[in-house]
Amino acid sequence: MSSHVCDVLVVGGGIVGLTAAWRAQEAGASVVVLDPSPGDGATHAAAGMLGAVMEAGFGEEGQARLGTASLALWPAFAAALERAADLPPGAVGLETAGTLALAYDRDDLVALRRLLALHSGWGLGSAEISPQDARRREPGVGPRVAGAAWVPGDHRVDPRAVQVALSRVVAARGTLVPHAAVSLTRSDGAVVGALDEAGTAYAAGTVVLAAGHASGSLFAGAPTRPVPGTTLRLDAGADRSPSVVVRGTVQGRPVYAVPRPVRPDGRREVIVGATSDEREDDHLTRAGDVFGLLRDVRALLPELDDAVLLEAVTRSRPGSPDNAPILGWAADGLFLATGHHRNGILLTPLTAAAVDQALGAPPDSADAVAAVEATTRFADPRRFTDAYSTTRGGTA
Amino acid sequence: MSSHVCDVLVVGGGIVGLTAAWRAQEAGASVVVLDPSPGDGATHAAAGMLGAVMEAGFGEEGQARLGTASLALWPAFAAALERAADLPPGAVGLETAGTLALAYDRDDLVALRRLLALHSGWGLGSAEISPQDARRREPGVGPRVAGAAWVPGDHRVDPRAVQVALSRVVAARGTLVPHAAVSLTRSDGAVVGALDEAGTAYAAGTVVLAAGHASGSLFAGAPTRPVPGTTLRLDAGADRSPSVVVRGTVQGRPVYAVPRPVRPDGRREVIVGATSDEREDDHLTRAGDVFGLLRDVRALLPELDDAVLLEAVTRSRPGSPDNAPILGWAADGLFLATGHHRNGILLTPLTAAAVDQALGAPPDSADAVAAVEATTRFADPRRFTDAYSTTRGGTA
Repeated sequence: MSSHVCDVLVVGGGIVGLTAAWRAQEAGASVVVLDPSPGDGATHAAAGMLGAVMEAGFGEEGQARLGTASLALWPAFAAALERAADLPPGAVGLETAGTLALAYDRDDLVALRRLLALHSGWGLGSAEISPQDARRREPGVGPRVAGAAWVPGDHRVDPRAVQVALSRVVAARGTLVPHAAVSLTRSDGAVVGALDEAGTAYAAGTVVLAAGHASGSLFAGAPTRPVPGTTLRLDAGADRSPSVVVRGTVQGRPVYAVPRPVRPDGRREVIVGATSDEREDDHLTRAGDVFGLLRDVRALLPELDDAVLLEAVTRSRPGSPDNAPILGWAADGLFLATGHHRNGILLTPLTAAAVDQALGAPPDSADAVAAVEATTRFADPRRFTDAYSTTRGGTA
Repeated sequence: MSSHVCDVLVVGGGIVGLTAAWRAQEAGASVVVLDPSPGDGATHAAAGMLGAVMEAGFGEEGQARLGTASLALWPAFAAALERAADLPPGAVGLETAGTLALAYDRDDLVALRRLLALHSGWGLGSAEISPQDARRREPGVGPRVAGAAWVPGDHRVDPRAVQVALSRVVAARGTLVPHAAVSLTRSDGAVVGALDEAGTAYAAGTVVLAAGHASGSLFAGAPTRPVPGTTLRLDAGADRSPSVVVRGTVQGRPVYAVPRPVRPDGRREVIVGATSDEREDDHLTRAGDVFGLLRDVRALLPELDDAVLLEAVTRSRPGSPDNAPILGWAADGLFLATGHHRNGILLTPLTAAAVDQALGAPPDSADAVAAVEATTRFADPRRFTDAYSTTRGGTA
């Protein structure tokens, strides 16, 4: 049985895990990442919608605070990552052009107005516009749209491009081992390493658990569940593609279309998503889910009928009991970075700031301070432990 | 520049071309098949519905005669092919269990009744049954079905399995060259060979042109056009899959679901098809086509919503000006086997009988005699040449 020693062992090589690995490397740590197929989890299906505003519904002010804090960090995060990966500016596909929200029928419009009022109360600005104005912004908007809103604060990025950039950076200075972790190693209550499926033992000063929905099977204090979702990749061409994120509800069902930048050959991918199922993890795409996504997106953007279907992808997001992330120290030597649910891409820079802070690098901007504060308030893993519950119970 | 000499050169290695090659080998000929990617044309997308009855509409008695003549040959053809390929009985997936035809709404039922009356006039038996009886045969039939018919004469086969079997047989005794033909070689009005894209010349006593929709670009007397179509491959499992072919119309739009045999692991593929477009050839699947197929098939078989979408495939059928095949001698040394349109799989045994006859092997059964007669009457390539038109004009 071979063994490895490193400063930081990261379990999971998706966007969240590689971000933690990168930040640890920046802090001077030697890093090993364990993942049998890095980036083939939730990252692979993610559309990259940075929906800090529109993703937050009633009872989800915490998610809204986390999301807006993280979104504020995205431009600096993307630029730093592109520099570190020696990629040109724009390589990770961050665009901050805003989002068009559509309501298909009058009931959808009532719901949209309620959401706008909720967000307004939280200080998140977005404004109702007429269907005609929506069509001025996006000529592909269909004829049967009851109302719309312009959401200047919601953006997009390309998760697969982010994954590629992170892989370049992390692989240049660290080790990516293509095996799954099977257990964490403990000593006197502290986590001191992990064992992988090949029988190799890793000893580490810090273990970052970023194994997505599988995190809970390695550490009971990370109560994650798989939330499978399907996205479709279309090639709409430059002509038929929306130029900004279009999202909406169609008779109560949410759907979105996230365009990628136009390619040199004129192709333009649009990611359509996403279903959200409470079932076991699998990578199997259901016919009914594909049908539902196409039905709803074509109701908002009929021209997508002529787009080419490139791919249908199903992967599981890591859900937590309150759907907020699980981000912070959970035991001596164990930092959790999971439970990001539908917002893993959005919350990646915030996760980076939390890892920086955990490894001793103080926040380097007011936005980073805000992100760390929001993390402490809304994402602390200890909210799921008995001690924490008892404490809260004691103060109630 | 290298060159090859053979008795029979077959241009095109899909089901039709390989069938011609096999029959030529059986007649004692040395055979070369040219195809850059055998079986990746219309064969790859074909569902394998043997719809001799239900595919024939008003004005298409010729197709009905060809189809029923060919269908009668399928059991012997499949058995002979399985023997020749040293595969177990049933390997090519022929099942003769009949077809369930469904009408979604009352207008669809009116159309179905008219079709049944038409077929009855041609002596093709099928009977209207109630939606309740339809559900007794197939419990997955949906609640909104206005009417149904049982079509005992329509069956199914697995085109990809047929392709595999034919490839084994032909490769064992002949040469498959992975290049496309770029031109036919002529001498004194006769066709005496072909040139391939690698510059190799082939001299042959007989050239069989079976290049699907591309046939017309090699020989003007084979006026084929591409008719792209999309099929979907679902894994419905044994529970949710229909056990026989289910076809129907949903508000006038045709759709079908063709089950494959249950696999040992319990999986059961169902092929859902098919769109039919008059456009240029490409292999690109449109989002709107996938949407339309799923919308219509789930109207008839709602449980398919839970099936796994395995694949969406788009390939071009070879259409002819009258949508009937182009099957027979077109010049000295040139035998055409193309233009099979939607019925290439159905018409494969009839094509085999026509090739047998052309190469001097007399029909070996009454069914084969009938197939050759139907071919001569309805599929003669000379119907598209000036001389033939003049003759017909002269007798009018």
